[in-house]
Amino acid sequence: MTTPTLLVLGTDPLPRLGRLTGRVRVEHADASTLAARLPSADVLLVWDFTSHAVREAWPGDGPRPRWVHTASAGVDHLLCPELAASDTVVTNARGVFDQPIAEYVAALVLAFAKDLPRTLELQRERTWRHRETRRLAGTRACVVGSGPIGRAVAGTLGALGVTTALVGRAARDGVHGPEDLDRLLARADWVIAAAPLTGATRGMFDARRFAVMQPSAYFVNVGRGQLVVEEALAGAVRERGIAGAALDVFATEPLAPDSPLWHLPGVVVSPHMSGDTAGWRDELGAQFVELFERWAAGRPLVNVVDKQRGYVPGH
Amino acid sequence: MTTPTLLVLGTDPLPRLGRLTGRVRVEHADASTLAARLPSADVLLVWDFTSHAVREAWPGDGPRPRWVHTASAGVDHLLCPELAASDTVVTNARGVFDQPIAEYVAALVLAFAKDLPRTLELQRERTWRHRETRRLAGTRACVVGSGPIGRAVAGTLGALGVTTALVGRAARDGVHGPEDLDRLLARADWVIAAAPLTGATRGMFDARRFAVMQPSAYFVNVGRGQLVVEEALAGAVRERGIAGAALDVFATEPLAPDSPLWHLPGVVVSPHMSGDTAGWRDELGAQFVELFERWAAGRPLVNVVDKQRGYVPGH
Repeated sequence: MTTPTLLVLGTDPLPRLGRLTGRVRVEHADASTLAARLPSADVLLVWDFTSHAVREAWPGDGPRPRWVHTASAGVDHLLCPELAASDTVVTNARGVFDQPIAEYVAALVLAFAKDLPRTLELQRERTWRHRETRRLAGTRACVVGSGPIGRAVAGTLGALGVTTALVGRAARDGVHGPEDLDRLLARADWVIAAAPLTGATRGMFDARRFAVMQPSAYFVNVGRGQLVVEEALAGAVRERGIAGAALDVFATEPLAPDSPLWHLPGVVVSPHMSGDTAGWRDELGAQFVELFERWAAGRPLVNVVDKQRGYVPGH
Repeated sequence: MTTPTLLVLGTDPLPRLGRLTGRVRVEHADASTLAARLPSADVLLVWDFTSHAVREAWPGDGPRPRWVHTASAGVDHLLCPELAASDTVVTNARGVFDQPIAEYVAALVLAFAKDLPRTLELQRERTWRHRETRRLAGTRACVVGSGPIGRAVAGTLGALGVTTALVGRAARDGVHGPEDLDRLLARADWVIAAAPLTGATRGMFDARRFAVMQPSAYFVNVGRGQLVVEEALAGAVRERGIAGAALDVFATEPLAPDSPLWHLPGVVVSPHMSGDTAGWRDELGAQFVELFERWAAGRPLVNVVDKQRGYVPGH
């Protein structure tokens, strides 16, 4: 086997790739050079997971990478029909973000339960105002998305005494199917969106779904912005159909400075960082190296995406 | 037995006391009338736990209540030498606040780990700025105070993957003694003050103790303000001896509008509310009614304070 070519989409430093020195020829590309370089690459590493360049640059026919790895949990930014139809294997960063995102969800849920955003507002005004807050234990969460992130969220909320229902693409052991969703939303204190973006999930949180939720409910999105009809969410919050939301992902990122979401009462906006704890890039680099070792040795890859479904099928 | 007189210090409504109708004569007092009414009372219920009136009004000799109950975990606001020396039994609200306070501590610890106060600041400026945050699992906490509140805090942090050491008045099974404190503080990511205010704990968090802590450490006080030398804490935060603090209790409450603590970077100020979740007054009322039933039946009371130590001795 000749030395394979690894094409990296993205310019940020790649930790841990030193272990592959001499065993791979590394080239870099950005959105403008990707199309020209893809045909000569054996492997594509999508290191800049904010880029949508793969979808536009993927060659319809002819030479192309045999393997594409993305340093993200979601694959919606690269799956185009041509890639889905090809025999190229796609893998993702399944596992790296699960626990950090679960902690992030717990942080936001607890912040709402304990009225922390209001505490910080009152503090700025030097105002001492006692309030009663909510007890988290005994409340109910509905987690939409039954992959490793959704399951980690359910585990962490469960450890805090929250009764948690998981909703997936189809009912199975411990997971509700879509047919239960509205019933579960109607009684949830916390609704957590942790699903992949697919044809079935795009826009699933629309005006009707927010209307089903309780006025006291909070919505937390750590999945993808396009799971949500943002105007419907803003309307539900404004008209007190729900109590508030924590949004880490948006239909367009970065969120535009003139978006009404920035200043909606009861809404916390964060810049797509829920899974990014110190050392995360090291973990992503190490994960890719481990996958590369498998690939180079001809062993089966793990974290292989079902390109029709748009995610790694679960257990 | 004639109908006993229950003297209530405080004017807020008393939930759940309807169950005692006809079996007790209820009188009310405030700071100005307490001294005159104490001698004729059989039972004193300190419902306004922010008042220090009992310390001043307690009769040295002569008739006095046989039982004093306070609707709070701490008893520092009522224990005076004359009450401590008397045969009057003192009980507290042990149990009501444990889980709510543990959740509150988890909320603040997670907020710091996930940089939530900064997220809210950036949101006000409509600024999208990605940051790496901390993973909570695998960090270390030192919880000072090994009563039910400290143990609940340790349990909740432990459920989130935090390695937690409890420090109490003396070493015992699962609890470190004061001799271990400095060593534990030196390696803690989170230092939680949940101790009663006694002669041994007053001012224990002083400049030397803050100097022992790591510059990355956060301090959380849900015990009593006077556990802390506030100037020393402010100095440690200003000079980055520690990363920040969440303070729910203060030497003087309400915190004065001109206190420098309000606007210290990295410090969250809340108005003594960590344990006060919806329904807490109902729980406190129900707990008193249950104790009263025991007392009226001549059965032993529970939650009996060791008046020399200043708290309910543990298991």
